[in-house]
Amino acid sequence: MEEKEISQAVISRLPRYFRYLGELKDEGTERVSSQELSDIMQVTASQIRQDLNNFGGFGQQGYGYNVGYLYEEIGKILGLHKEHNLILVGAGHLGQALVNYMNFERRGFIFRGIFDIDERIQGTKVRGITVRPMREMERFVRENDIDIAVLTIPKGSALEVAEQLVSYGIKGFWNFAHVDLHVPENIQVENVHLSDSLMKLSYNLASHDE
Amino acid sequence: MEEKEISQAVISRLPRYFRYLGELKDEGTERVSSQELSDIMQVTASQIRQDLNNFGGFGQQGYGYNVGYLYEEIGKILGLHKEHNLILVGAGHLGQALVNYMNFERRGFIFRGIFDIDERIQGTKVRGITVRPMREMERFVRENDIDIAVLTIPKGSALEVAEQLVSYGIKGFWNFAHVDLHVPENIQVENVHLSDSLMKLSYNLASHDE
Repeated sequence: MEEKEISQAVISRLPRYFRYLGELKDEGTERVSSQELSDIMQVTASQIRQDLNNFGGFGQQGYGYNVGYLYEEIGKILGLHKEHNLILVGAGHLGQALVNYMNFERRGFIFRGIFDIDERIQGTKVRGITVRPMREMERFVRENDIDIAVLTIPKGSALEVAEQLVSYGIKGFWNFAHVDLHVPENIQVENVHLSDSLMKLSYNLASHDE
Repeated sequence: MEEKEISQAVISRLPRYFRYLGELKDEGTERVSSQELSDIMQVTASQIRQDLNNFGGFGQQGYGYNVGYLYEEIGKILGLHKEHNLILVGAGHLGQALVNYMNFERRGFIFRGIFDIDERIQGTKVRGITVRPMREMERFVRENDIDIAVLTIPKGSALEVAEQLVSYGIKGFWNFAHVDLHVPENIQVENVHLSDSLMKLSYNLASHDE
């Protein structure tokens, strides 16, 4: 594929295309026009064409998009044809929920190890995976080709743990800690700040409450 | 406060301001310039001034911002001075994790009821709150002044449940179901699509892997 800087806004929309195309595919739909896609996704047809043109188009004048092909191609763009090896750091409720969620594995995101600072839960298992002490993390990351660390730890320890993990070779963070990580530019961070999301909902409720 | 349409992009940044100001406040910092805030938040100073000007400014030439005052004011803008009554629909791992997370309650988001379709867990408790059958939901929402429903249910049932909840008087959804809800315009929806977030991370890993 061509080297091109795609905006994060476009990238944010790709998983949504992927989701809708997956549904169309499951329903047996073979082709779809940008107008039809526009109607179900509630995005303008021109936005759809523009977004997909970033990756070379895929559409054919008068035919529209081939659903199966487009689904596969967007999956490839999203890197879903490769497997990722994950570790979870922080085996609290949220961390356990993430490990137990089957859909991630179906997409190639596979939890290989779980780490926690709490001795009382070390040795216990979450979905068959043993919770290990933090001191085993470095060796585990290096030996198991781990590329993504999922952080579900308090914000007080997140910065330090992230820094260690970068030195062990972690390439990406899925960060649920309520803090912005400071990592080198070549390391990818995707934040899920649940409190921020809830506050945004609160704002929208308050501002429509008049 | 003045009636003004604020962009969702600005609103998305408010919780982050709130978080950083809270930290400054906890450290005992009394005032901060937009330049200092810019340095810690890694946003330009002009962006900060522009964002805060949407709400009337708060800053004083040559003084900067009063941390405590700005923190309080942004909290009010975010609607955090009011309590919200929440129900959880779907008491799986993720739902339980959300109920167990203390920080939401500290911000005034209080889980009052939990509902699940699974008879085996009805009657059990999560953090002291009984899991109830779905048929009790309407009465519970109406009698307990519930304004927010947190949906941690499979996407297949989310649309129908959301529609019911709107008719019961729910004003906002915090939606973790992997589907876009269709609700009237006066109803607020904040989505947390975990799979989308993970795919975005995957994309960024793949596109930096060359």
